[in-house]
Amino acid sequence: MQIVIIGSGNVAYHLAKAFTLKGIPVTQLFGRNEKELSKISEELNIPYSTAHLEKADLYIICVSDHSVEEVSKIIPGKNCLVAHTSGSLPKEVLAGEYRKSSFYPLQTFSKSKELEYEKIPFFVEAENDEDQKLLLDLASKISGRVMESTHEKRKYIHLTAVFACNFVNHLFSRAKEISDSQGIPFDYFLPLIDETVQKIHTIEPKEAQTGPAVRNDVRILQLHEQLLKDESLDIYKTMNHSIQKMYEL
Amino acid sequence: MQIVIIGSGNVAYHLAKAFTLKGIPVTQLFGRNEKELSKISEELNIPYSTAHLEKADLYIICVSDHSVEEVSKIIPGKNCLVAHTSGSLPKEVLAGEYRKSSFYPLQTFSKSKELEYEKIPFFVEAENDEDQKLLLDLASKISGRVMESTHEKRKYIHLTAVFACNFVNHLFSRAKEISDSQGIPFDYFLPLIDETVQKIHTIEPKEAQTGPAVRNDVRILQLHEQLLKDESLDIYKTMNHSIQKMYEL
Repeated sequence: MQIVIIGSGNVAYHLAKAFTLKGIPVTQLFGRNEKELSKISEELNIPYSTAHLEKADLYIICVSDHSVEEVSKIIPGKNCLVAHTSGSLPKEVLAGEYRKSSFYPLQTFSKSKELEYEKIPFFVEAENDEDQKLLLDLASKISGRVMESTHEKRKYIHLTAVFACNFVNHLFSRAKEISDSQGIPFDYFLPLIDETVQKIHTIEPKEAQTGPAVRNDVRILQLHEQLLKDESLDIYKTMNHSIQKMYEL
Repeated sequence: MQIVIIGSGNVAYHLAKAFTLKGIPVTQLFGRNEKELSKISEELNIPYSTAHLEKADLYIICVSDHSVEEVSKIIPGKNCLVAHTSGSLPKEVLAGEYRKSSFYPLQTFSKSKELEYEKIPFFVEAENDEDQKLLLDLASKISGRVMESTHEKRKYIHLTAVFACNFVNHLFSRAKEISDSQGIPFDYFLPLIDETVQKIHTIEPKEAQTGPAVRNDVRILQLHEQLLKDESLDIYKTMNHSIQKMYEL
């Protein structure tokens, strides 16, 4: 099977690397950014081009969401399978007469980091069973966590990640505002944060909940509200309300 | 200096262990739970008692917040220093004629875990400079992160931890509800969560923010709101509002 990867960003790099490490040949890297393409090409020993797109059985588009549709138009012919790697787009956004699919790795990629590809979940969707099987098999060669997924399901995957990652990071930002205001290095909280996250590797987050809201410690809750204002106060109230609802307090 | 540790829970165990590992003798472990005391006593080779409290220069009370005051009454005399290990109580809660202080380790302890004591922050408060220095020196022997802290400051430390740990854990609970609803194993999100937390070890959380709110991706924000209800919807709106305020979007 001839595979072409389109793009030269983090997703393109890590996919190409994961395939290469597992002995799955990548026919070509294609994109606009010659500098990045040549770097990846040299490291992984894969030909690249910015002008001539090779014929392939499978094209994997690894570009940002807003460019997927435009990029999908450069793929000619009907007799191939095209996959995008976006978590939030339907496969129908691909604008060609070929077979359409989605090949979505759930991970924040950054080029400088070594990733354990085995642990990166892949979510796969295709138009027919044969393509579905092809993509599931391909993903299974590089990852131990592969699932079928409709566009509908990907919406919820994305939403889960927003809660578990984007919002979590924002809580760190607001927490840091509080510690900064008292001259306490935010670094001091990292062991506690690491511990919080380590815990949910072995127990359910619902079982791991601690803090004044789940203890219904009204004295502390009132005290804390007096220390906060604006958005941080809104977050404080909203989160405590949600905790108390979850535990029926 | 004679040190007595009162209590047999996680904080008592880890403090006693940290001191012992650094060659700081603990004169006695004192408490009610003979079974736990004898276990710690055997492991660390420290005498224990449930009946007779030894004379000491420093008593460290490692019991839960609601028992600190009661336990503090059993310490006789004026000529000693007493510290509690609570993050939320003032030192004045200690009910005796002795010198009062706070010796607060910022960490979730659990007995089964090996902890890197060097990285556990200690916050110290005393009535006078001499006691303050004594406690700072003592903490510095077991930890590389030691700070003075008033009761006022400890309130903000606790509040920071509520945002960075308790609320973060609750977001994991709500995220898991969403993934459970679609039959997606929450385990699949752990690599992404680990990555999110790993990031803030090297860059500011404010710089690390990703997701639809900071991109001001109105289409996705509206779509997500349609998928949510009740407390999760409240959290979604409150967090996005706070993110957009922080980045002036």
